[in-house]
Amino acid sequence: MEDFELVNPTRMIFGRGVVERVGGETVWYGKRALLVSGRGSAKASGLYDTVLQSLQKEDIAVIELSGVLPNPRLATCLEGVRLCKSEGLEVVLGVGGGSVLDSAKAIAAGACYEGNLWDFFEKKAEIEKALPVVAVVTMAATGSEYNRITVMKNEQRHVKVGLWNENLFPRVSLVDPELTYTVPPLYTAYGAVDIISHVLERYINGQPVPLIQLRFKEALIRSVIEAVEKALVEPRDYEARSTLLWAGSLACSSLFDVGLGSSDIPAHIIDTEMGGFSDHAHGAGLAVVMPAVMRYHADRCQDTLVRFAAQVMGLERNKYDSDADFVLAGIVAFRSWFQKIGCPTTLQTLGIDSERFPEIAEAVARNEEGPDYDETLAILELCR
Amino acid sequence: MEDFELVNPTRMIFGRGVVERVGGETVWYGKRALLVSGRGSAKASGLYDTVLQSLQKEDIAVIELSGVLPNPRLATCLEGVRLCKSEGLEVVLGVGGGSVLDSAKAIAAGACYEGNLWDFFEKKAEIEKALPVVAVVTMAATGSEYNRITVMKNEQRHVKVGLWNENLFPRVSLVDPELTYTVPPLYTAYGAVDIISHVLERYINGQPVPLIQLRFKEALIRSVIEAVEKALVEPRDYEARSTLLWAGSLACSSLFDVGLGSSDIPAHIIDTEMGGFSDHAHGAGLAVVMPAVMRYHADRCQDTLVRFAAQVMGLERNKYDSDADFVLAGIVAFRSWFQKIGCPTTLQTLGIDSERFPEIAEAVARNEEGPDYDETLAILELCR
Repeated sequence: MEDFELVNPTRMIFGRGVVERVGGETVWYGKRALLVSGRGSAKASGLYDTVLQSLQKEDIAVIELSGVLPNPRLATCLEGVRLCKSEGLEVVLGVGGGSVLDSAKAIAAGACYEGNLWDFFEKKAEIEKALPVVAVVTMAATGSEYNRITVMKNEQRHVKVGLWNENLFPRVSLVDPELTYTVPPLYTAYGAVDIISHVLERYINGQPVPLIQLRFKEALIRSVIEAVEKALVEPRDYEARSTLLWAGSLACSSLFDVGLGSSDIPAHIIDTEMGGFSDHAHGAGLAVVMPAVMRYHADRCQDTLVRFAAQVMGLERNKYDSDADFVLAGIVAFRSWFQKIGCPTTLQTLGIDSERFPEIAEAVARNEEGPDYDETLAILELCR
Repeated sequence: MEDFELVNPTRMIFGRGVVERVGGETVWYGKRALLVSGRGSAKASGLYDTVLQSLQKEDIAVIELSGVLPNPRLATCLEGVRLCKSEGLEVVLGVGGGSVLDSAKAIAAGACYEGNLWDFFEKKAEIEKALPVVAVVTMAATGSEYNRITVMKNEQRHVKVGLWNENLFPRVSLVDPELTYTVPPLYTAYGAVDIISHVLERYINGQPVPLIQLRFKEALIRSVIEAVEKALVEPRDYEARSTLLWAGSLACSSLFDVGLGSSDIPAHIIDTEMGGFSDHAHGAGLAVVMPAVMRYHADRCQDTLVRFAAQVMGLERNKYDSDADFVLAGIVAFRSWFQKIGCPTTLQTLGIDSERFPEIAEAVARNEEGPDYDETLAILELCR
């Protein structure tokens, strides 16, 4: 195991109806809250009213910032920061999916900073403190409710950037599987893809890796595969929705990544940069990119991909002539499974034409954690 | 999944040589520390001096409390509390195994309380605050470095009591696998038994349980089984020692227990109460009690025990006539494995004569979380 440092102070409150506790959990941090939400699904479902009522019971004054889009925009967050500062807000409450929670986190940091919020994403400044964040998550996907990450899109600059900082952990996350009953099938599937990709990025590795972490990851992915299939058939399957949320929170919490060394399989980075060029859902992009990345790295990462084919996809080694054949079969099965749950598997389907490939590859190459231009271009070619 | 609340604010710093950071990590919490340690192995190995030097570099004044025994004693902790109060100490540093860390936690709570420390264990008082605890763990076993539990023996009353409280989480735990190279083979094995038992208690369950949690537990146990076998052959196997420590920290952190409902398999409680009557190592007691508890509950918990036989012990279902036979074979294989790694498997070996069984059963029955008198007696009879 490589050396690591692990901390996660978020308090997760998980179960039916926990959202009714949001007022009581928020009031610890202040009486003036910014309430960040998305494009209306929380309002349509009645969740938003439940939240408002719970906040009202605790006499918490609420300023609302709704309309956060998937792939959260800097402009929306800057408005949130302005509101926090001008209204003297003390706590930021996010009610929604990963984009809403990421926005809430970024706003919370920006509210305690004199300069421009984007400085953090450009690494011109370090987050020294942030307002407390309370999260109510409505979708199993990014795991933002249980980590210190925020991803932001700067629409003027065609870039989407991730930021890690310990001040960004939500203080409390309220996780009610019933809130995800109304997530549409396609987005349920995209969420599962996102979860699986988080887990796979360091699983598929050219270096020797601690078996215990690989096994945890296999346990997680197999459970997600089963659960998403069930949730697509029966959207109100509580156990399946619970499993997806729990798996999603753990997947991006770093718990099964510690000790593994840095990521060899940069599917997330490639999709993040693609997000600067197209407004596809993150999960859809990952469904396209993951199998291509795995194929590109198949030889170098053969050992873990052999495990993947057997332990995750359930294939039998003795039915194949060579490890290389077995690995390829595993990747093909994985891609077929994405198709089965309704995900796109080519860049064309996402609306990304091959003419944009060089630009995307350049953007990825500029990202210091990403692969170089040639590797990205080769991977994109495998996504046609 | 059942409803749950999960939090773990401990910062774990894991890797080679991390103990040299102890001064820098402790000084955040104060300049006056109580240094709690055991019966001398830390001093013999040089670890103790490394700790003292690191504390000295940060000008931390140190009061020493050494000689903590396995199955930590109230009397030692009361002395620690007295020192904290009389010397105005600000932080408690534990350097040792589970008993030392449990003592450090209890002292930290007692130091902030006017009454007698034992009140907390008798539930006459709630821990409202505690001094910050910094942990340097030297053995993979109880997971005390990554949880909010302390277990204490009141030698005058023949009882050993566990206590859970959020104020007991260490602020920082320093985990260096190399520090466990010198743990003797028997104690390496006992530690592994303890880890496995923590994981199994809620795994073996008569109620329907979320598969994802079972799979995580299987991943953990299989990894511990492999790692302890390697560490017994080669005590300086860094990967094996890392796996044991990481698994031990997770095993008792509640992470894979949340959502599972309460424990059906009270092996820990029975051994804890047995600890009031004998000074056997906790892991040794568990090796005796676990298989007996599993046999006692075999019918009621057949579904999970079938999984156990297949996924953990690696047996093949088609070689057995019935599920009941398969379950029994799994338990027998488990018990044989305990023998293989050098653990006792009868109460006689622990020095507990059958004449004491009724007294032990009475003690267990008094524990409100334990099974009743008849069940305990029947289980003890299976441990002969």
